[in-house]
Amino acid sequence: MSHLVPPILRAAPELDVVLHDARSPCDAEVAVCWNPPAGALASLPKLRLVHSIAAGVDNILSDPALPAVPLCRVVDPQHARGMSEFVTWGVLHYHRQLDRVMANQRLERWFRHDQRDPSGCSVGIMGLGEIGSRVATDLQRLGFTVRGWARNTRELPGVATYAGPQGFRPFLQGTDILVCLLPLTDETRWILNAATFEHLPPGAKLIHVGRGEHLVHLDLITALTSGQIGGAIVDVFPAEPLPAGDALWRAPNLIVTPHMASVASSETIGMQVAHNARLLTRGEPLQNVVDVSRGY
Amino acid sequence: MSHLVPPILRAAPELDVVLHDARSPCDAEVAVCWNPPAGALASLPKLRLVHSIAAGVDNILSDPALPAVPLCRVVDPQHARGMSEFVTWGVLHYHRQLDRVMANQRLERWFRHDQRDPSGCSVGIMGLGEIGSRVATDLQRLGFTVRGWARNTRELPGVATYAGPQGFRPFLQGTDILVCLLPLTDETRWILNAATFEHLPPGAKLIHVGRGEHLVHLDLITALTSGQIGGAIVDVFPAEPLPAGDALWRAPNLIVTPHMASVASSETIGMQVAHNARLLTRGEPLQNVVDVSRGY
Ligand SMILES: NC(=O)c1ccc[n+]([C@@H]2O[C@H](COP(=O)([O-])OP(=O)(O)OC[C@H]3O[C@@H](n4cnc5c(N)ncnc54)[C@H](OP(=O)(O)O)[C@@H]3O)[C@@H](O)[C@H]2O)c1
Ligand SMILES: NC(=O)c1ccc[n+]([C@@H]2O[C@H](COP(=O)([O-])OP(=O)(O)OC[C@H]3O[C@@H](n4cnc5c(N)ncnc54)[C@H](OP(=O)(O)O)[C@@H]3O)[C@@H](O)[C@H]2O)c1
Repeated sequence: MSHLVPPILRAAPELDVVLHDARSPCDAEVAVCWNPPAGALASLPKLRLVHSIAAGVDNILSDPALPAVPLCRVVDPQHARGMSEFVTWGVLHYHRQLDRVMANQRLERWFRHDQRDPSGCSVGIMGLGEIGSRVATDLQRLGFTVRGWARNTRELPGVATYAGPQGFRPFLQGTDILVCLLPLTDETRWILNAATFEHLPPGAKLIHVGRGEHLVHLDLITALTSGQIGGAIVDVFPAEPLPAGDALWRAPNLIVTPHMASVASSETIGMQVAHNARLLTRGEPLQNVVDVSRGY
Repeated sequence: MSHLVPPILRAAPELDVVLHDARSPCDAEVAVCWNPPAGALASLPKLRLVHSIAAGVDNILSDPALPAVPLCRVVDPQHARGMSEFVTWGVLHYHRQLDRVMANQRLERWFRHDQRDPSGCSVGIMGLGEIGSRVATDLQRLGFTVRGWARNTRELPGVATYAGPQGFRPFLQGTDILVCLLPLTDETRWILNAATFEHLPPGAKLIHVGRGEHLVHLDLITALTSGQIGGAIVDVFPAEPLPAGDALWRAPNLIVTPHMASVASSETIGMQVAHNARLLTRGEPLQNVVDVSRGY
């Protein structure tokens, strides 16, 4: 966390910033964290705000002793842009069949696949929040047919949207490339499983950039082996780093990436933390507050 | 070529279309071709127009007996869009360091590279014609810093442009990812050689989607081996298909793709050929005429 101290102080030099290791006593009012040890936040007697350094807060909400103070997260257009770059790369990789072209290269085999219009490729995005909606819009501009799925009905120009559990199956049935940009909650845990894969058209692709506990690894390996899933890019894992020797590293047609799809810049995190700390001091409404009951 | 007959006839049913094998006599006035055997066009006594089915015409201009009739090519926005998809994929592949991430996967190695802003990555495009200018504009919209090089001074919003031989070296010196979208002419043959690579910053990447005879293979392999070129995608080759056993298939940090970056659709080729055939009949000015003296 030490890399965040200078950006926080640049944005609000009056703050008193300490690096806390959860062992010594501490009278911090604002805790800045990503994956705090369970109980660590409860040990801070003066705590008034928990601030995630990321877009997701599942690592914080999983603490059974989480104090009942506001929880804020980082929302950053550059962050969404980085995600859009990564997902665009993945969608183009599959749409232009570079996965097969690269496999052919290993065999020294020249084979031209037909070039297809992007409008014939349907990208389905799970989660239409700050990040998912930006990704949907960018892919739609590139000419892809884009659909999205959220909890509530959402309006996005040019994007067909589906809502809630009853919208999930119709959403999946018309999706050629599935992108997971959901937060991890009790409702979304293990949502990428055999039943979900079964509802996709055979050979559909998966780009998983949500959270590790969305995905049942064995179900993915089975679907990749049978060809029901024709290829996958997985960026997030229940245990990170993914340990050497894990079956996922060598699963067929799978690209493992090291939780790199997008990080917010330290400068932005520092500014947002500092800004919320000031709002707290002044008693004004905080920004990017998480709905703890909803889980995101 | 038989796949082009229905689209041509759909666009102009009055035309008389024959498949010509250059052995039997033929009184065609328009020849539609991609890589005609030398002398074949000269054997057509009634020839009034040669029409390429592609954007490039180097395979036709290389015929020493090419008759002195107009030569037209295909110009298609969808074609430029397909090229933009391919180059965008390649630029994102290098910008987000997926080449290294995929190499790490083979070692079961988890390593997060720093995420960089696209404005810090300079893409240099050789050739700012119908296709290159579209690619430049699209990459610039994604946030990359884009520069371009052409024969004449060109104006493209947000793109720094360089012209002619004297502009080549300054163009190369600030280019992190070099994209070749030149036509093949006497001036551009073997332009991707050791001297060109030397002027790039060390570790620069190459995306070569022009023509096979732009690139000196041995110079590229040397530059990839030394690291002067940090990675390359090569789509075009002097002999296509690239033969199994060619050293390029296994050169380090090289992706070989099978001349797939972009093809015009048969429908568009058929429409443009039919349209020019009609203009010829009516004695009106033809479209997309190649300047034979210039070579493109
Ligand atoms: N791999 C990476 O590098 C990386 C980086 C950043 C973020 N992420 C992941 O991306 C996630 C999304 O970030 P964000 O900022 O876009 O989140 P957000 O703004 O909170 O949006 C969450 C979206 O998911 C939908 N959703 C939540 N629960 C759902 C459910 N049970 N069923 C259907 N839809 C549901 C929400 O629906 P409503 O619109 O109806 O509320 C909303 O559209 C993060 O939580 C994190 O998991 C990954
Ligand atoms: N790999 C594939 O799938 C694929 C598909 C389509 C096309 N291509 C390649 O892409 C090429 C470009 O197509 P296009 O339709 O964009 O061509 P174009 O419209 O004719 O444009 C050619 C561009 O190259 C520049 N140029 C030509 N000779 C030059 C020289 N000696 N020095 C510097 N610049 C020079 C021209 O400069 P000015 O602007 O000054 O005239 C122009 O900007 C084709 O010829 C073909 O080789 C490849």
